[in-house]
Amino acid sequence: MSFSFQLEATCGAARAGRFLTPHGEVQTPVFMPVGTLATVKGVPQDVLEELGVQILLNNTYHLYLRPGVETIHHLGGVQKFMAWHKPILTDSGGFQVFSLSDLRKLTEDGVQFRSHLDGSLHFFSPETSLAAEIGLGADIIMAFDECTEFPATYERARQSMELTARWARRSHDYFQAHKREVPWFEEKTRQLGSEQTQALFGIVQGGMYPDLRRESAERTVAIGFSGHAIGGLSVGEPREKTWEIVNQTIPLLPADKPRYVMGVGTPEEIVEYVRLGVDMMDCVMPTRAARHGLLFTSQGKLNIKNARYARDDNPIDPNCRCKVCTRYSRAYLRHLYASQEVLAQVLNTVHNLAHYLDIMRRVRETIISGEFAIARPVS
Amino acid sequence: MSFSFQLEATCGAARAGRFLTPHGEVQTPVFMPVGTLATVKGVPQDVLEELGVQILLNNTYHLYLRPGVETIHHLGGVQKFMAWHKPILTDSGGFQVFSLSDLRKLTEDGVQFRSHLDGSLHFFSPETSLAAEIGLGADIIMAFDECTEFPATYERARQSMELTARWARRSHDYFQAHKREVPWFEEKTRQLGSEQTQALFGIVQGGMYPDLRRESAERTVAIGFSGHAIGGLSVGEPREKTWEIVNQTIPLLPADKPRYVMGVGTPEEIVEYVRLGVDMMDCVMPTRAARHGLLFTSQGKLNIKNARYARDDNPIDPNCRCKVCTRYSRAYLRHLYASQEVLAQVLNTVHNLAHYLDIMRRVRETIISGEFAIARPVS
Repeated sequence: MSFSFQLEATCGAARAGRFLTPHGEVQTPVFMPVGTLATVKGVPQDVLEELGVQILLNNTYHLYLRPGVETIHHLGGVQKFMAWHKPILTDSGGFQVFSLSDLRKLTEDGVQFRSHLDGSLHFFSPETSLAAEIGLGADIIMAFDECTEFPATYERARQSMELTARWARRSHDYFQAHKREVPWFEEKTRQLGSEQTQALFGIVQGGMYPDLRRESAERTVAIGFSGHAIGGLSVGEPREKTWEIVNQTIPLLPADKPRYVMGVGTPEEIVEYVRLGVDMMDCVMPTRAARHGLLFTSQGKLNIKNARYARDDNPIDPNCRCKVCTRYSRAYLRHLYASQEVLAQVLNTVHNLAHYLDIMRRVRETIISGEFAIARPVS
Repeated sequence: MSFSFQLEATCGAARAGRFLTPHGEVQTPVFMPVGTLATVKGVPQDVLEELGVQILLNNTYHLYLRPGVETIHHLGGVQKFMAWHKPILTDSGGFQVFSLSDLRKLTEDGVQFRSHLDGSLHFFSPETSLAAEIGLGADIIMAFDECTEFPATYERARQSMELTARWARRSHDYFQAHKREVPWFEEKTRQLGSEQTQALFGIVQGGMYPDLRRESAERTVAIGFSGHAIGGLSVGEPREKTWEIVNQTIPLLPADKPRYVMGVGTPEEIVEYVRLGVDMMDCVMPTRAARHGLLFTSQGKLNIKNARYARDDNPIDPNCRCKVCTRYSRAYLRHLYASQEVLAQVLNTVHNLAHYLDIMRRVRETIISGEFAIARPVS
């Protein structure tokens, strides 16, 4: 078996566990930094290792356009391509097709779209998306879904959820027929002594309607995926709504498989989702905010642009032990940001990732020690 | 004494030595990476340390405009400001005033100029420039000179050289009167048990005219600087001319003090300058070329933009042991560059600096072992 999930401890609904992929083990709950184009913008891979990053997210839509699936397949898969020798997860490209590209036509078969780069015409279906994900060779790949927009009427959300359910089946069938085409299939199978393929996760949709979410969860679970994600969140709805949907949907997903909420959240929110029983999360927030000079600290957010930091020789966060906080002052980081120096982005990103990863590390420790419910990490 | 230079070995005219500054020792011959705004663009300070960078160059003109001398003085000097706890050298700002700013008026007293950032009006004289350099607190600082343009008539070059000679005297006098105002004066004096100040270097000008260079060298040396630089090169003249001027001027500079050629050169050229007896060099070439995708290798230059590298899983340079070449492929680096990812700049810069620093390391070793004349490093 190439993918397995083991529960180690629970504390209320919160869970600590681990799963094994062909490129190594991941301890949960886990936060996955986003490395859209096979790079976490500005941060070298050895620094990601030092930070304790366990698994990265890459975007299929972006890598499909640049450098192309063929190129990455030829080079042995995305882990070898980016010299990141640990697990990687790719989304299906669905979310980006709907949010980034000029969408041309949505049919039962799939979506025709124009590249946001050069306007060229492309087509994604469950089959072509899965072919791309198999070709890229991430350890965990996602079924091709339609991300329902917000707001959406009940009728629209139902149609969209049903399309996603049909596409989930087609994603699963295509994957079963082609899973041995992953670039590292032979190498990893030989190395690990059993057949090694990717793990395919299904995605629950249903907009903001509890009964549609329930039906989506049931239909998705019935297909037999290796893990389950809740999609269609962080699309503009109020934060309480996101929490409500996660809270209602998590109990409908099998407890013996990883549960992943896509595209969340703030440092406070990721702790709350763990409390609801979520095992995996990804979010552009720490990396994107860093590029805009917004830093997360144990005392709240800090905007490094602010003139008050011009002569402040304190670290970003006196409680943080990351390599940025133990070396550089706010004054220096403000100077770099104000001067539009590239090092500003590099150092800000390293700090924000350290903040997120430290929170998850403490959360996991307190779940295992049984203290999680009472020890809410300050963030 | 806060600055001393010791010769260790010679091999023909080439020299290996070391000098001591308040922030540590530097082994020569040495290549100094350029960190204009108190950052080597994109490279964190711990990576510079790993690369074996011994001393950095910062630009007075840029730091004077942003974040300002007062700010850096307040924070304890540029070493503390940028958290680089080794030696730093600042130029006088003269070169940038003449090349970057909108020059308003040159008089005997100094130059009035407009900032290239916001057009604000400023004035640099030997006294104000030295005040800025003392305020920033680099270990080695440069006299304020006029960098003669190329081409220049004999008469123009003579006038310019004479102005530089008078400004050298004024720089020296100002420095002697104010050298105890360097931000770390008390701390370093207490720490090291003797009076610690900066080292002031004089600059030889004279355009492309050997007799003017000779006169400039004599007048500069007579003032009693801690080291001597050859300025006014790499201003557009043919490369053979640069070599000729260095070759003629080096023997006119005292052998018991460091000899520094400003603003050179290619990997091949820096070896040739060592061969002429040069101890110190700085150049934007490795860092600037990296930002344009131009990489230096033991087999010559490599343009990472080139489509031929799209599926090339070799390192930039199979003979290089840097952290980029031991981890990443040309295909990945090309993808980063083509996608305008910030990590391209970071990794390209690390490699190019490693290439320069490795050359200098081998050059130094072969001078000490006496094999330098025959062992021309391939570059």
